[in-house]
Amino acid sequence: MKRSVEIYDTTLRDGSQGEGINFSVHDKLRIAERLDAFGVHYIEGGWPGSNPKDIEFFAQARRRRWRNARLAAFGSTRRKGIPVDRDEQVRLLLEAETPVVTIYGKTSLLHVREVLRCKPEENLAMIRETVRYLKDHGRTVIYDAEHCIDGYKLDPDYAMATLKAAAEAGADLVVICDTNGGSLMREVAEVTALAVRTLPCPVGIHTHDDIGLGVANALAAVEAGAVHVQGTINGYGERTGNCNLTSVIPCLTFKMGLKTVPRRSLRKLKELSQFVDEIANLRPNPRQPWVGSAAFAHKGGTHVNAVQKITASYEHIDPALVGNSRTVLVSDLAGRSNILMKARELGFRLHPDMPEVKEILRLVKEREHQGYEYEAAPASLALLIRGVLEHNPELLFTVETYHVSMRRDAQESICEATVKVRVGDQVHHTVAEGDGPVNALDGALRAALVRSFPELRKVRLTDYKVRILDSAAGTAAKTRVLIESTDGHEEWGTVGVSENIVEASLQALADSLEYALLRKNRLRRRHAKGS
Amino acid sequence: MKRSVEIYDTTLRDGSQGEGINFSVHDKLRIAERLDAFGVHYIEGGWPGSNPKDIEFFAQARRRRWRNARLAAFGSTRRKGIPVDRDEQVRLLLEAETPVVTIYGKTSLLHVREVLRCKPEENLAMIRETVRYLKDHGRTVIYDAEHCIDGYKLDPDYAMATLKAAAEAGADLVVICDTNGGSLMREVAEVTALAVRTLPCPVGIHTHDDIGLGVANALAAVEAGAVHVQGTINGYGERTGNCNLTSVIPCLTFKMGLKTVPRRSLRKLKELSQFVDEIANLRPNPRQPWVGSAAFAHKGGTHVNAVQKITASYEHIDPALVGNSRTVLVSDLAGRSNILMKARELGFRLHPDMPEVKEILRLVKEREHQGYEYEAAPASLALLIRGVLEHNPELLFTVETYHVSMRRDAQESICEATVKVRVGDQVHHTVAEGDGPVNALDGALRAALVRSFPELRKVRLTDYKVRILDSAAGTAAKTRVLIESTDGHEEWGTVGVSENIVEASLQALADSLEYALLRKNRLRRRHAKGS
Repeated sequence: MKRSVEIYDTTLRDGSQGEGINFSVHDKLRIAERLDAFGVHYIEGGWPGSNPKDIEFFAQARRRRWRNARLAAFGSTRRKGIPVDRDEQVRLLLEAETPVVTIYGKTSLLHVREVLRCKPEENLAMIRETVRYLKDHGRTVIYDAEHCIDGYKLDPDYAMATLKAAAEAGADLVVICDTNGGSLMREVAEVTALAVRTLPCPVGIHTHDDIGLGVANALAAVEAGAVHVQGTINGYGERTGNCNLTSVIPCLTFKMGLKTVPRRSLRKLKELSQFVDEIANLRPNPRQPWVGSAAFAHKGGTHVNAVQKITASYEHIDPALVGNSRTVLVSDLAGRSNILMKARELGFRLHPDMPEVKEILRLVKEREHQGYEYEAAPASLALLIRGVLEHNPELLFTVETYHVSMRRDAQESICEATVKVRVGDQVHHTVAEGDGPVNALDGALRAALVRSFPELRKVRLTDYKVRILDSAAGTAAKTRVLIESTDGHEEWGTVGVSENIVEASLQALADSLEYALLRKNRLRRRHAKGS
Repeated sequence: MKRSVEIYDTTLRDGSQGEGINFSVHDKLRIAERLDAFGVHYIEGGWPGSNPKDIEFFAQARRRRWRNARLAAFGSTRRKGIPVDRDEQVRLLLEAETPVVTIYGKTSLLHVREVLRCKPEENLAMIRETVRYLKDHGRTVIYDAEHCIDGYKLDPDYAMATLKAAAEAGADLVVICDTNGGSLMREVAEVTALAVRTLPCPVGIHTHDDIGLGVANALAAVEAGAVHVQGTINGYGERTGNCNLTSVIPCLTFKMGLKTVPRRSLRKLKELSQFVDEIANLRPNPRQPWVGSAAFAHKGGTHVNAVQKITASYEHIDPALVGNSRTVLVSDLAGRSNILMKARELGFRLHPDMPEVKEILRLVKEREHQGYEYEAAPASLALLIRGVLEHNPELLFTVETYHVSMRRDAQESICEATVKVRVGDQVHHTVAEGDGPVNALDGALRAALVRSFPELRKVRLTDYKVRILDSAAGTAAKTRVLIESTDGHEEWGTVGVSENIVEASLQALADSLEYALLRKNRLRRRHAKGS
C-alpha cells in the first residue's frame, strides 16, 4: 500500500495574513466548502481568539455538514502566569466546537526569553497543560512547534524538550514549523528525522517561502518521515507566503508516488486555484507551477515542433492530470474541445463538425479579448451559444433607454434610475432609488420586468464582483462585472464588460434575468432534443 | 577559503522565452550592463542562429567594455548529416565573437530518436565535433546537457556517454539541465554527483520551476558538487520560468556561505529585480522571495510586537542585505506597534504613551470594520493620523455638492458629472464628461481644483481598483476603491468605502489630491518637528 500524507489547509487562517487578502465570513465558508469537496484532510478556519469574524465563521460552520475535511480552530498555548482554564483565548478555542484544535507554542529559547519573557520551564508547562486540557475536552490536538528549525539550531535540547512536552501531554501530531521560512532542505530534513525517531506521535511540516524553498522544504520533510503537510492554496500567507498546496500536492502525488487527495480531485486543481484567487480578488499568476495559465505554454519554435512530435518531450506531465491544458500548440483544438465540454454541461448537444462550433469559438475568443470571462459566467456563455445556434433569436426583453442620476448636497444624497424596457409590444417605464447607481438600476429593471414575468420575483443576486481590467489606465479602465444569481434552487453566473461600470453591470443583470426566464422551460429542452 | 559558485545569467536568452516578454536590442544592452555591474560571471546574450535581433545584440555588445561578466552566445550542436564547418548556426556562433560559447546537445535517447531522428552514435559525434570545433576557434565552451535528468532516468549509460563526449572533446564545463523542470531534488543531486565524480571538467546546473523546485534543485546540485548555476532575474522563462537568480544567489551566499557575486552587490538585489521587471514591463511580484515588497512585511499584531522586541524573531535575515526593507501592514489584526511603526514611516513622530495613539488605533479599527483598508492606502492613513494630531484641521478643499448623470438611449450614451468645490472663500463649479461616472467625476474635480492649485496638473492616477465587500449582499454591497496616484516622482495610495461606488471613488480621489497638496510642504515638516 502507498504511504499517505495528510493535507492540512490553512488558507483561511495563515493565508489570510497575506498582503491584500481580506476574506469575509461568507468568502471563508465558500472556500471551505470547495476545500472539503476537493478532499483536503483538515481545514483550519481561523483563530477565534484573535477576531470576531473567526468566531462567527465557526458558528456558521458548525451548522454545515463536512464530507471529507475535519475543521480545526487555531490558537496558542495558554498565557504565562494563569491557569489554562482561565485563559480566554483557550476558552474561545473550545467554544469554536471543532473536532480538531491546533495550537502553536514556542520552541526557540530566544522567543521564550525575549518575546514571551518567561522561564524556559514555564513555557514547557504552558505547552503541556494546554495540550492536556484540550485533550481532556475531547479534541484532536495538533501542536505547531513555532520557529522549530531556528530554535533547534539555537538550542537543540530545549527545542526537542518542547516537542516532547507536547507529544507526552497527548498531542495527536507535532508539526515542525519553519516560521521565518529561512531554512534549507537539509536543515528541515535533519530536525524532522530526529522528531520522527524520538517522538511517540506522528510528525507534520509547516513551511514558508521566504527564501523560495517553501515547497522544497515540505518535500524534504516528507522524505524524512513527515506524514502531514500544512500549506495554503496558491501559497497565500504572510510575507512571501506559505507552502503552496497547489504545488506540493501534485509533487507528492505524481512525483513521489504518495497518497494525498483523491486523484480525480487533482483534475480540479487548477479550477480550485482560480476559484480561490477569484474570491480573494487576486489576479492569477500565469507562471504559477502546475496550475498557471502559462505552465504548459510553449513559445520557442523548437519546443512547439517537438511537442507536436511527442508530447512528453517538453512536458514533465500530462497537464490534464491537474486540470490544466497545453497552450500554443493548436490552441484551436484545445479551445474547441473546451467549448464542446462546456456546452454539454449547459445542456446543449453539439457535434465537433457543426459550423456553429467554429462560430461560437470565434465569438468567445473575440469577447475574451475584449475582457469577458466565461469561466465564472456559464449563463452568459449559454446565452451566447444559444444566440449562435438560433441565429440571433429575438430577446425576451430589451432595455431601450436608461438614465441614472446621483446627487449629493449638504442635505441629502439621492441615487435614482429609470429604465424603459420593451417586452414584445409592451413598454414598461419604471423608476427606482438605490444605495448606488447599480443598485438603483437593478431595482428599476426588476420593477419593469416583473410586470410581464412575475416568476422573476424569486430571482435575487447572491454575489456581485467588479474587476478593473488594465487598471493602469486609471478611472477610464475597462470594468468587468460578474454576477451570481439564484432562484432558491439553482445558482448561475453572468458577466458584463464596459468602460462604464453601470453599463457593464446592466449587461450582467440583463443576462442574468434573460437566463432565468429561458432556462428551464425553453433553453435546455429545445436543444437537448434539437441537435 | 570559501568555495565559489559561478553565476550564469540567461535572462536575455532563456528568460526572453517567457510569456509576455519581448526585449528590444536596446533593452538587452541595458539589462546586460546592469548584470555586469552587479557582478554575474556570465551573460548569455542570445541565440544568434535563431533571430537577427540577437545577431545585432552581439554586434553592439562587442563595442562595449565588460567589467565583470563574460559574454556567451548560445546555440546547439551541429545539425545531423553535415560537417560542423558547414553548419550555418555554428558559423553564426563564431561570428558573435564572444569569449564564451554555450551549446546544448541531446542527452535523452527519446529525443535523439523521436525529435532529432538520428542514430545515438551520430548524436555523440555531433556533440564531440561541435565542442572541438569551437575549442579550436579559441572559445571557452560550456556544454548544456538538455533533458539530462529525464535522459538519465531513461538510459543512464547513454546519458553519461553524451556528457563524457562533451568533456573529452574539451568542454570547459558540462551543465546538467532539467529542461522540463519536473525533477525532484534527490534526482538532480544523484545525477550531478555522478557527473562530478566521473567527468574531467567542472559541472554546472540549469533548472526550471515547473513543479515549484527551480531554486531547490539548483541548491541540491550545488550541494552535490556543481560549481556553476544558470538562471534568470525574477525567474523569467518559458512556462513557469527558470531558476530564479534573485533567490538562488542570496541562498547560496547567506544560507550556504558560498562565494557568488560581491556582497555589496547583493545590497542592490532588489533594485536589480525591479529594474528588470520595469524593462520587461511586468508588474513586480510583491510576494517574490527576498526582493518582493511584501517579503519583509508584517501584518499579524503578535508578529509586529515581536519584531519590535527583536528584529531577528520573525525575520530570517536583515532585509538590508538584499536591499529590501521591513514594512508593517496596518490591518484589523494590528495593534499599537503597527501604527507606531507605520506613522514613523510616514514621517510622524509618535510616542507610545500619547493619548492620540490610542485614538488613532480606535479610528483605524473602526474604519477597517467599515471596510477601509489602509495597508494599500498609506496616504489615507497619513491624513487620518494628521486629523487626530491636529484635532480635525480644516481641509484644503471641500466637495460641497456633486451630480453625476448617465443616459443611454438608441442614439447615444452620455455620462456627465458636475461638482461644486469650496477652497477657502472661493467656490468652483465645474463639469466634465467621461467614459463612466467615476471618470467623469474625476475630470470635474480636477478641473475645479487646478484653478486654485495648479500643481495638481502633474498628479495623475496610475491604478484604480474596486473590491466589493461582502459581495453576497448583491448590488447593495459596500464598495472599496483603492487608488494609486503619482506626481512623476512619488507614488501614493488612497482608499474610499461606500455602498455607492461613485461616493467611494470620490473619497479616494479627494484623499489623493489632499495628500498631494499637503505632502511635502506641510504634513511631514510640521510633525517631524512638532511632536
